[in-house]
Amino acid sequence: MKGRAEVRVMLKDTVSDPQGETLQRSLVSKGYDVSRVRAGKFLQLELTGYSREDIVARLEEICSDILSNPVIEDYEYDLEEVLE
Amino acid sequence: MKGRAEVRVMLKDTVSDPQGETLQRSLVSKGYDVSRVRAGKFLQLELTGYSREDIVARLEEICSDILSNPVIEDYEYDLEEVLE
Repeated sequence: MKGRAEVRVMLKDTVSDPQGETLQRSLVSKGYDVSRVRAGKFLQLELTGYSREDIVARLEEICSDILSNPVIEDYEYDLEEVLE
Repeated sequence: MKGRAEVRVMLKDTVSDPQGETLQRSLVSKGYDVSRVRAGKFLQLELTGYSREDIVARLEEICSDILSNPVIEDYEYDLEEVLE
């Protein structure tokens, strides 16, 4: 099976986010009523495995070991099958 | 109304993505069967406006003028109301 995953990696709520804070102040200074910005990463992956369960297992490894730092970041993903 | 938006900013399909390519090669070298990686930005914003339409209009401005470079990037977002 081939799958397409969309992964979102965000700093945990308790971790300060200087990039988001800078962006929020910049938006306010331009007149937008924005109270909070959190910045993160977005990744699209195409990966192949024996089954959906197999792909999910690999995706969990990739997200926790490579794409995110579990000490300060959380991740979530959606996975859809790619029909070939 | 107060809204929470999740914005995803990606390089257009025709634009090369060195970060994604590096990540893809790195994942393959670790044994993962990953054929493609595209890297982008993920942003969560909390913003206030008179109505949902008002917030959407501001969000479109913010996304096209500030969060993305329309020459090389596309964006998409979800917006949900925050009940206070």
